[in-house]
Amino acid sequence: MTAYEIIRKKRDGRELGAAEIRWLVRSFLDGTVTDYQMSALFMATFFAGMTQAETETLTVAMLESGEVLDLADVSGPKVDKHSTGGVGDKLSLVAGPIAAAAGVRVPMVSGRGLGHTGGTLDKLEAIPGLRTDLPPEEMRRVVSDVGLSIVGQSPRMAPADLRMYALRDVTATVDCVPLIVASILSKKLAAGLDALVLDVKVGRGAFMGDLGRARILARALATTASGLGLRSTAVLTDMDTPLGLAVGNALEVTEAVEVLRGRGPGDVRELGLFLAARMVLLGGLARELGEAAVAAETALDSGRALDVFMRFVRAQGGDTAFLEGGRGLPSAPIVREVPARSSGYVTAIDALEIGLASVGVGAGRTVAGEAVDHAVGVVISAPVGSRVEAGDPVALVHAADETRAAVALRRVGEAFSFGDRAPEPKGRVLEVLESA
Amino acid sequence: MTAYEIIRKKRDGRELGAAEIRWLVRSFLDGTVTDYQMSALFMATFFAGMTQAETETLTVAMLESGEVLDLADVSGPKVDKHSTGGVGDKLSLVAGPIAAAAGVRVPMVSGRGLGHTGGTLDKLEAIPGLRTDLPPEEMRRVVSDVGLSIVGQSPRMAPADLRMYALRDVTATVDCVPLIVASILSKKLAAGLDALVLDVKVGRGAFMGDLGRARILARALATTASGLGLRSTAVLTDMDTPLGLAVGNALEVTEAVEVLRGRGPGDVRELGLFLAARMVLLGGLARELGEAAVAAETALDSGRALDVFMRFVRAQGGDTAFLEGGRGLPSAPIVREVPARSSGYVTAIDALEIGLASVGVGAGRTVAGEAVDHAVGVVISAPVGSRVEAGDPVALVHAADETRAAVALRRVGEAFSFGDRAPEPKGRVLEVLESA
Repeated sequence: MTAYEIIRKKRDGRELGAAEIRWLVRSFLDGTVTDYQMSALFMATFFAGMTQAETETLTVAMLESGEVLDLADVSGPKVDKHSTGGVGDKLSLVAGPIAAAAGVRVPMVSGRGLGHTGGTLDKLEAIPGLRTDLPPEEMRRVVSDVGLSIVGQSPRMAPADLRMYALRDVTATVDCVPLIVASILSKKLAAGLDALVLDVKVGRGAFMGDLGRARILARALATTASGLGLRSTAVLTDMDTPLGLAVGNALEVTEAVEVLRGRGPGDVRELGLFLAARMVLLGGLARELGEAAVAAETALDSGRALDVFMRFVRAQGGDTAFLEGGRGLPSAPIVREVPARSSGYVTAIDALEIGLASVGVGAGRTVAGEAVDHAVGVVISAPVGSRVEAGDPVALVHAADETRAAVALRRVGEAFSFGDRAPEPKGRVLEVLESA
Repeated sequence: MTAYEIIRKKRDGRELGAAEIRWLVRSFLDGTVTDYQMSALFMATFFAGMTQAETETLTVAMLESGEVLDLADVSGPKVDKHSTGGVGDKLSLVAGPIAAAAGVRVPMVSGRGLGHTGGTLDKLEAIPGLRTDLPPEEMRRVVSDVGLSIVGQSPRMAPADLRMYALRDVTATVDCVPLIVASILSKKLAAGLDALVLDVKVGRGAFMGDLGRARILARALATTASGLGLRSTAVLTDMDTPLGLAVGNALEVTEAVEVLRGRGPGDVRELGLFLAARMVLLGGLARELGEAAVAAETALDSGRALDVFMRFVRAQGGDTAFLEGGRGLPSAPIVREVPARSSGYVTAIDALEIGLASVGVGAGRTVAGEAVDHAVGVVISAPVGSRVEAGDPVALVHAADETRAAVALRRVGEAFSFGDRAPEPKGRVLEVLESA
C-alpha cells in the first residue's frame, strides 16, 4: 500500500477500502505519508467526494488515533451540541447550562474563532482565570460534578483530526463535506457521547451560504453519526443576521449570562431553549419534544441553568466575580456609536460584515494562533425591525483605539439596510433533520 | 497574495492572474509556499485545468526560475525533439545525429526511465565513460563542435520544474496536461531552442493510452509552444508495440547504431528519418517536407549521422571502442529464448508488458533514483507479422540471473498474441499537428 496509489485511486473517482483509509491515517501520524501527499489527497477528495462507507471509516480511523473519554461512571445521558460557526453565536453558553440543569451530562469540546466567526473557547477565556485546556481526566471530573465542561480539543483526543485540520486550513480543503463530517464526529465520539445536536448555520454569516449546501452537510453529519451509533438531530438555523445583539468575546459572555438570568435578546433565548430541549429529548430525559421544551424552560427560568454556569466557571478555574456583582469582565477603553445611514426600518444586518468588523477591532483572528482582544466587539442597538432616523445610533463599537474604532464604525454602518416597512419577523430554525 | 487564496481560486475554477502564477513559482522556490500547498494546487489543477494564458505564464515563470542556455554564437537553427516516452524508444539516438548531420544544431535535454518506459540518459550511460551531467557551458561547446549534445536537466536550468516534477511524481499529479506542457516546454525553452518536434506516443506502451487524450496533449503543447514563440510540430505516433526489436539500455544503443549504419529495424529507421526531416524543415534548412526528407536520408545513408554520433560520444567522454570494432557495450551473463505459446502469425506484442518485463530484469526503475542494469533487457526475434510454430523462439531475455530471467520469460511470452492471418502492416505516424 502506498500513498501514491491511494491518492491516484481517489483522484480517479474510485472508492478507497477500509484498510487503505486506516493505513493512511496511521501512516500520516507516523510520518510515512507526508503532508504534501495528504494535502493532494484532501484536494482530490474535495473534487471526487467520499462514499458513506469511506466517510464512516475515516471518522473511526481518526477517532481511534487517540483516546476516548471514559464517562462510563458518570450517570445520565452524555449529549453535546455542535455549531458549524456563526456571528454572535453564544448558544453553547446558553444551551449547555440549560441542558445540564435539566439532567443532561455535557462534555463539550469546542473550538476557537477563525475568519469572521467567533469561537466558544475565546469567549470563555474572557472570564479571568478560566482554563479551557483541561486534560481528559479533569474534564471528566467537571462533567461528573457540574454536568457541563467546555474544553479545547486535547492532543490526546483524535490527534489525527488536529493534524489533518491544520493542514486543510492552509490548503483550501476545509470546505469539503466528508472531511468536515469526519473532523466533527471523530472529536465528538472521542468525548464519549451518546447523542449530539448539530446546529448547522446557513446564510451570510455562516460558512455555508445557501440552504442546499447546508442541507447536504447536515444530512451527511446525521447519516454518519447514525452509522456510527451516535444518535443525532441536525438543525438548520438562519445566520443571515448576527445572533443576539453582542458580537465579541466578553460582550457575548455578558449577553449569554443575561439570557441565563431570564433576560437578553429573544432569539438567543429561544434558540438556546430549542437546542437544549433537543439535547434533553435525544438524551432520553423526555418522551416527546413538548415535554423536553418544558424541562428546558424550567431549568432556565428556575435559575438552575445560571447556577450550573456559575459552578462550571468555578470548576474550570474562572473568577465568578462578574456573576456575583463584583468586578466585571474586561471592557474596551473606547466605545463609539454607529449612526444610521438613513431613516426607516432596519430590514437586514449583514452578519458577515458585522463579523469582519468585530475581527477588525481585534475580537477575532485572520490567522490561526493569533491572540484576540477579549474586551472588544460590536453591540447592535437597533435590531432588524427597529424604526430609526438617519444619524440615530444603531450599534456601539467597542475598541482598543480610535483608529480601529473608526474603521469598524464605517463597516458596521454599512452592514445595516433600511426600508419603508418593517420586515416580517422570522424564526431562526429553518429545518430539523432527525436520525436514529 | 497568499498560497491559500491562490489554491482556493483554482479550486473554485477561476483563472489565476499572471502576477499570481509568477509569485507562486518564485515563492515555491524560496520556501514561502510549502510543498503541501503546491501539491494541493497541483491536484486542484488536475481537476479544474488551466487556460491557455495560465499555461503560458506558468511555463515562462518556470523557465525564468533558472538560466537560459545562450546559443547565440552557435550558427544554425537550434531544434530538439522530445518524446513523451515509450518502450524501445531510441529515436533520440537516431533522429538527433541525422538532424545534426543535416545542419541542425541539437541541444537535447533528456530524462531517465520511470515505470515501464526507458529514458535516453540511461541508454547513453550504457556507453562506458559517457557523461550526461554536463553543465550548460560544456553543453554549448559540444553543440557548437559536434552539432549534438544530449544531457540531463542541469539544476541551473528551470529549477522550478525539477522541484515541481519531483513533487508531482509522488502525489499522483503528473498526469495533468497543463502541468505536463509547462514542464516540457520550460526545460526546452531553457535550452535556447528555435523549434521543437514533439513525438507524442499513443497506445499500450505510452502514458496516454488513447488517441483522444494524446491529441489533447499534443495540441496543448503545440499551442503553448506557438504562444511562446517556439515553432513546433507535434507528431502522434503509435506505441502499442515496442519500437524496433530491442528494449533495454545497451541493447537499444546497439540497435540505434545499427540504424545509423543503414541497417536495423525498419520502423526505427523510418520514424527516425521522419522526425529528423521534421527537425530539418522546422529549422528552415529545407523549403518543404520532401526536400527535408531527402536531406535526412542523405545524412543517414552517407554515414555522416553515424560520424556525428561517434563525435558526440567522444565529446561527452564516452569510449567509442564499441563503434570501432573494439570492446562492446556491457552484456548480460544470461540469455534465454522465449518460446511461442502457440502457432500462427504474431498479431500483437504488448509494449506495456515488454516494458514491464524489461524493468523486471533491471533495465528500468520503479522508484526515482534507483540504479539500472545497463546490460539487460528483451530483444524481439519474431516481430508482428512473423509466422511461427508453437515453441519457436519469439524473443530473447537478457538477464543478470536465472530467477529474474524466468520471471521475464513468462511475462514476455504472454505479451505475444497470435492469429491465423498476418495483420495489415501499419505505419507508426498517426497524425501530425503543425504550429506557427
